[in-house]
Amino acid sequence: MMMLAEAEALDARDPLAPLRDRFMRPDGLIYLDGNSLGMLPQASVAASADMVERQWGERLIRSWNEGWIDAPTRIGGKIAPLIGADAGEVIAADSTSVNLFKLLVAALRRDPARTVVVSEAGNFPTDLHIAAGAVGCVPGAELRVVARDELADALGDDTAVLLLTHVHYKTGARFDMARWTADAHAAGALMLWDLSHSAGAVAVDLNGANADLAVGCGYKYLNGGPGAPAYLFVAERWQAALGNPLSGWMGHAAPFAFTDDYVAATGMKRWLTGTPPVLGLGALEAALVLWDGVDFAMVERKSATLFDMLLAAGKAVGLECVTPRDPVARGSHISFRHDHAYAITQALIARGVIGDFRDPDVLRLGLTPLTLSHVDVWHAGRLLGEVIASGEWQRPEFTVRAAVT
Amino acid sequence: MMMLAEAEALDARDPLAPLRDRFMRPDGLIYLDGNSLGMLPQASVAASADMVERQWGERLIRSWNEGWIDAPTRIGGKIAPLIGADAGEVIAADSTSVNLFKLLVAALRRDPARTVVVSEAGNFPTDLHIAAGAVGCVPGAELRVVARDELADALGDDTAVLLLTHVHYKTGARFDMARWTADAHAAGALMLWDLSHSAGAVAVDLNGANADLAVGCGYKYLNGGPGAPAYLFVAERWQAALGNPLSGWMGHAAPFAFTDDYVAATGMKRWLTGTPPVLGLGALEAALVLWDGVDFAMVERKSATLFDMLLAAGKAVGLECVTPRDPVARGSHISFRHDHAYAITQALIARGVIGDFRDPDVLRLGLTPLTLSHVDVWHAGRLLGEVIASGEWQRPEFTVRAAVT
Repeated sequence: MMMLAEAEALDARDPLAPLRDRFMRPDGLIYLDGNSLGMLPQASVAASADMVERQWGERLIRSWNEGWIDAPTRIGGKIAPLIGADAGEVIAADSTSVNLFKLLVAALRRDPARTVVVSEAGNFPTDLHIAAGAVGCVPGAELRVVARDELADALGDDTAVLLLTHVHYKTGARFDMARWTADAHAAGALMLWDLSHSAGAVAVDLNGANADLAVGCGYKYLNGGPGAPAYLFVAERWQAALGNPLSGWMGHAAPFAFTDDYVAATGMKRWLTGTPPVLGLGALEAALVLWDGVDFAMVERKSATLFDMLLAAGKAVGLECVTPRDPVARGSHISFRHDHAYAITQALIARGVIGDFRDPDVLRLGLTPLTLSHVDVWHAGRLLGEVIASGEWQRPEFTVRAAVT
Repeated sequence: MMMLAEAEALDARDPLAPLRDRFMRPDGLIYLDGNSLGMLPQASVAASADMVERQWGERLIRSWNEGWIDAPTRIGGKIAPLIGADAGEVIAADSTSVNLFKLLVAALRRDPARTVVVSEAGNFPTDLHIAAGAVGCVPGAELRVVARDELADALGDDTAVLLLTHVHYKTGARFDMARWTADAHAAGALMLWDLSHSAGAVAVDLNGANADLAVGCGYKYLNGGPGAPAYLFVAERWQAALGNPLSGWMGHAAPFAFTDDYVAATGMKRWLTGTPPVLGLGALEAALVLWDGVDFAMVERKSATLFDMLLAAGKAVGLECVTPRDPVARGSHISFRHDHAYAITQALIARGVIGDFRDPDVLRLGLTPLTLSHVDVWHAGRLLGEVIASGEWQRPEFTVRAAVT
C-alpha cells in the first residue's frame, strides 16, 4: 500500500489540485459521495445569493428578459462539451426521470414497426420504472429487460430504442459507448444513454460514438446542487423528427403568443415543458464554470490512481471489490460487496468518511477528482482498514437502518 | 376617485399591512406583477442561504435524511390549507405542466368508455398544449376545446375529465368552483382545476366544492421564487385508484430498495417522479410561512378595494376593463384592453409601475394583497392616468417588442 508521503507527492504534482479549494469542504470530513450529491462550489454561494437577492428580489419579472428565459439553452451549451455534444444538442430541463420519459416516448413513436424498449436488469431503478411508464403511453409498446450478457441478443427488428446507463450506479461498470451504440444501430434501433454517473466522471463522447439520445443528472459529478435540473441530448439529425410528448408552453415555438394550438419550437427548445426551475439552474450554471480548461484525460488518470489506493486498502482487509479493474470499463467510484455493507458504511461515517450503502450489500465510495486530494483518499483507505480490522462496524448503533442513505 | 388621504387611512387599518414589510421591495418600484412572479419574502433570503451553505455545503448527502426527502410531502401539507385540501391530499413536485400531464393521463385511464378531455378555448396555453400531449398518450382519447359558453354542452357520457383554470390568466374571470365541479360530476366526469392564478389570490375550497384533482403553481401568489416547484392535489377518495404515468423512482413505495419493478407508493407520494428540486423547495417552503394566520376573507376584501381603485383610475382615462366587476367572479388582477396595450405597459414600467402585457391587447395589473399597500395602488392609478392622458406611451421606444414581457 501507498505511503502517506507518496500521496502527498501525487498531490504536489496534480494539475487538478487547485480545483479542490474552489469547493466548500466541511472540516473533518472526507466526502466520498460526490457521485450522489456533488460538493458545493464556492462560486455557487455567491451565484445563489445573487439569484435570490438581486435577480429575483430586485429585478423581479424583468429577469426573464435578462437571462432567465435563455438559461436552459445556455446551460445546455455549457454541459455539451463535457459529453461530446454540440452546444445546440443539449438543454437543461426537469429531472432525469421526466427527460427519460420524453425521449423514450419520442423514440417509440418514430417507427410503428419498432415497439420495444430494451434495457438492462438492475439498471438504475428509475430508468426501468420510467420505461415501464413510457411503454404504457404508446399503443403496442413493450419493455424488454434482460441481463447484461443477454442485451445483444435482445436487440432485433422490433427494437425501437436501447436504453443503457453508461456507468452503473452500483458496480461502476461502464459500457463501451461506441460499441453498444453501433450494436443498437446495427439492429436499426436508436441508442439512448443515461449519463448520470458518467458526465463529469469520465470522458464522454456522444457524437464520437454516434449516439442518438441521452439524459443526465446535474447534481452528481456536475455539482449543480440537490435536485439540480437535469439535461437531455438529441443528436442534431433527429431534432426535427422527434417530438416531446410533454408538450408544454416552454417548448412552444412562440410561448408568449399565447395561442391555443401547440407548435413545437425548433432545435432543443421543444424539449422544454413548464417554467424552468430558475433557482436550480442558477446553482448549476455557476458549478459548470469549474470545468473550464479541465481535460478529461487528467480526470480519468487521477480517478484511476484514487481507485487503486482504495482498492489496495480494501484488499488488505479482505474486502471484495465488485467494480471492474480496467479503468476504461468503469466510472469514478469503487464498490465493495459485504454482507454487512450497511453497518460498515455507518461506521465509516462515524469516522468522518462519507460514502453510501446500496441495497442489499454494497459499500459505494465516490472518487471525484475535482474535490478529492490523494491525501484525502489515503486517509479514507486507512480509516476503511481500521473500521474493518477493528470490527467496530459490528457495534449495534451502526446496524439501525435510516430512511435514506 | 379616491384621495391619497383615503388610501393612507385604509392602510392604517389594514390587517394585512404588516406583511408588506416581510418582502424585499426595490426602491421606487410599484410591483403589479406578483401574479406572474411573486416578490421575494425576507425569510427566503436566509432560508436559501441556509439551504445552500449549511444544508448542501456542510451537511451534504446527510441532508436527505435531515429534511429533504420529506420536503415534497411537508410542503404539500402547508399548501393544503390555502386551497381547501387536507394535508395528505397535496404534494409539491415538478412544474404545473408536468403535473397536469400526470393527472390528465390518470383521469383518461379511469374508464375506457370516457375518452374526452374537455377544456376552454383561450385557457392558459400550457393547459391546452399538455392536454393535447396527454390525449396522445392514451389510445382513443381526444381533446375537446370549446368556448366558455359552450362548456356545459360539451360535457357528456364520453367525458373523462373537465379541465378548467379557476381564474383566467388574462381576463381574471373566475369560475364558480362548486357549480362547475357539480356539472362535471353530473356528467360522470372528473373535475381538474388549475389553481395557478387563484391559490393565494382568492379563497379556494377544493373539498368544499368536492373537486377531484387540481394543480397549481408555486411562483405566483405563493411567492415561491422563479420556476418554483408546482403542486398537485388528488382527493383522498381517488388516491388508490389513480396512478402516475411518469412512474419514477421517487414515487416508488420503496425508492431505496432499488428494485427493477415499479410499485407505486400509497398516498400522494406516487405522484413524485424524479429527484425533487431541493433548492426551489427550500425557497417555496420559506414563503409559505407568510400565510400563517392569514384569513382569505381579508385577502379578498383588500383585493376588491385595490381593484376598485385601479378600475376608477382606468375609467377616468377611458380604458376598457375586461375583468368581471363582481368580486366573486374574478381573481386578484385587473386587465384593461387597449390596441396599444404593449406600449402602455412599457410606458408604465418606465414610470416605475411594473405590470405586464398579454398578447394581443391586454394590460394586466396584479393586485397582491400581501405585498401592496393602498397607497402603492393609489400611486399606480395616478401614474396610469398620467401615462394615458399625456400620450407618452406613444413614444417610439415603448413600441419595440422584447422577447418576453
